[in-house]
Amino acid sequence: MQVLPTFLARITPPITPALVIRRAALAANLAAMQAACDQAGVRLRAHGKMHKSSRIAAEQMARGAVGLCCQTVGEAQAFVAGGVPDVLITAPVPPWGWPRLAALAATARVGAVMDSVAQAQAASAAALAAGVVLAAYVDVDPGMGRAGVAPGDALALVQAIRGLPGLHWAGIQAYCGHHQHMLPAQRAAAHAAWSDRLRALLAELRAAGLNPGQITGGGTGTAAMDLAAGVYTELQAGSYALMDVEYGDLGDLPFQPALFLAATVVSARHETHVTCDAGHKALHPNGPVSRVLWPAGSRYHPAGDEHGAILPPGGAQEGDLVWLQPGHVDPTVALHDACFVADEDGRLERWPIDARRSSL
Amino acid sequence: MQVLPTFLARITPPITPALVIRRAALAANLAAMQAACDQAGVRLRAHGKMHKSSRIAAEQMARGAVGLCCQTVGEAQAFVAGGVPDVLITAPVPPWGWPRLAALAATARVGAVMDSVAQAQAASAAALAAGVVLAAYVDVDPGMGRAGVAPGDALALVQAIRGLPGLHWAGIQAYCGHHQHMLPAQRAAAHAAWSDRLRALLAELRAAGLNPGQITGGGTGTAAMDLAAGVYTELQAGSYALMDVEYGDLGDLPFQPALFLAATVVSARHETHVTCDAGHKALHPNGPVSRVLWPAGSRYHPAGDEHGAILPPGGAQEGDLVWLQPGHVDPTVALHDACFVADEDGRLERWPIDARRSSL
Repeated sequence: MQVLPTFLARITPPITPALVIRRAALAANLAAMQAACDQAGVRLRAHGKMHKSSRIAAEQMARGAVGLCCQTVGEAQAFVAGGVPDVLITAPVPPWGWPRLAALAATARVGAVMDSVAQAQAASAAALAAGVVLAAYVDVDPGMGRAGVAPGDALALVQAIRGLPGLHWAGIQAYCGHHQHMLPAQRAAAHAAWSDRLRALLAELRAAGLNPGQITGGGTGTAAMDLAAGVYTELQAGSYALMDVEYGDLGDLPFQPALFLAATVVSARHETHVTCDAGHKALHPNGPVSRVLWPAGSRYHPAGDEHGAILPPGGAQEGDLVWLQPGHVDPTVALHDACFVADEDGRLERWPIDARRSSL
Repeated sequence: MQVLPTFLARITPPITPALVIRRAALAANLAAMQAACDQAGVRLRAHGKMHKSSRIAAEQMARGAVGLCCQTVGEAQAFVAGGVPDVLITAPVPPWGWPRLAALAATARVGAVMDSVAQAQAASAAALAAGVVLAAYVDVDPGMGRAGVAPGDALALVQAIRGLPGLHWAGIQAYCGHHQHMLPAQRAAAHAAWSDRLRALLAELRAAGLNPGQITGGGTGTAAMDLAAGVYTELQAGSYALMDVEYGDLGDLPFQPALFLAATVVSARHETHVTCDAGHKALHPNGPVSRVLWPAGSRYHPAGDEHGAILPPGGAQEGDLVWLQPGHVDPTVALHDACFVADEDGRLERWPIDARRSSL
């Protein structure tokens, strides 16, 4: 691929702020992760919460992904509507969600994690009412405290699920979100300790006469360790496809920056800075601050919902494009209706961010 | 109106996280601001960047607003498509925006602020090409450094605009965003100093033989001062309609909380907290942290893109609704496709947030 500034200089999006995906970098990232999974004999179930795009999902499926992860019921509805045949909801589902998931299961394989008997009962009732079977995974909390049962409570929930009609117990989810952004040495130590705990749980399941099924989890930051650990059967990574400042700065991940944001300088009345048309509604402030790629050497500072300052101007004048790399990809992509996928010659194709919708 | 907890207890949105507007509180806020403007003889041009809803815009127009303010070209396109006959773009427009605004001007009155001769020339060229006239306002910077000319440079830009075909010079914009959230005493002092500077500018315009036209600006935090100052002819307030933690905590504004977010407890495995399904993609982190209204006395802490912790649980159990007031209304509303407008008896009507779209 050409060097990044040469590539960006060829691109003129029809509107700003505009998310632009470098097609060649996306393809390289998708291929690299699929190859790593194939080599390890681990299924790739890419996480769709990051891109919310059934177009990107299709690229992942075409390369060998077994399905998509979804963080919400709405994402699952959008991805199935967009042609994804196999979805897994990776967070506990609110009661209103079960009938919707059961309806989806008429046309797709639908799985969901759960961390209580009440959730399993609600899932069972919805599946029975719809005449479908839902795949049920026990969500195990690796210490984040957000959702999931303690490892010692997993077997009891597995047994409860196995006793309920309309559910097929399919495995265990163990997602270590808090490991993903650790620096390399800490990440390896935390991952090793958790893998040991997970092996003990799998031994406990086998001692109870159970085949543990799929062990699904992992992410972009820990992918190399997840694939090497011999514990996971399914990798849930998402951010690898587009990357961001947060993951890029870890320095040890074999993926390329593929997502950029173009903004226009709309006011240039000061020597210290110019103002561009990207603010809190275009670049989500969660995570590290978004990085200015062009003009080189400048910094971005949010200046309200629809504006940001570029300091120093670095030669950027009113009407010029400036280019940024988003700090945290997931919530930033969710702010946009669509992105533009760019070939190396600057040609653009519009891809809708169709799972952005919070409700259908 | 009933007390807030009684009202919220009647509401069961079909999905979560869900924005809920209390119809009676919205109506009271709209009426109060319109009455204050009418009494002062100042036009109300409500800011649509806050609600991004042509349904709310219609309520504002029906009560007497002269039109809507828009912060982006996309908002203007959506509001005109939604039936608003008069829009003003309150931030400098990128070059790609002028042909779009000129196209809109075939069916609506379209105004835009500008802070450079180059912008005026681009606007003029687009208006001529489309055979329309755009209303042009000189954007004056009250000291924020984001956009706008220094007051001393305004007259020169007015004269440049008056010399260009396709443009009708319509007035001055002076929006003091940095004053809106000051505590009352500081706000009054800052407002008085800026009003004096603005009066001097108007005198300068009149001395040059010009009728200053509309003086548009002001906001929810300074509305009482804006209306009393005798300088502004048009008020741009937006947040008053729904309010948020940030404006409510100022303590001196005569508007009621009208916007709430319902979330579901999806995991309850800890004594210290429960986890609900509202995170960074449902409650924008800009501004003060969102406030828990129910369970009373608990706090909200974001726990990722789609989750938040409620601490302590306050009796909330898995499957229960929790209720929050968003910290900063504008970017939070922009995260949602729709809101539910609630009557006092709990009946819900879905209103699309149709100007949320970043592109048309």
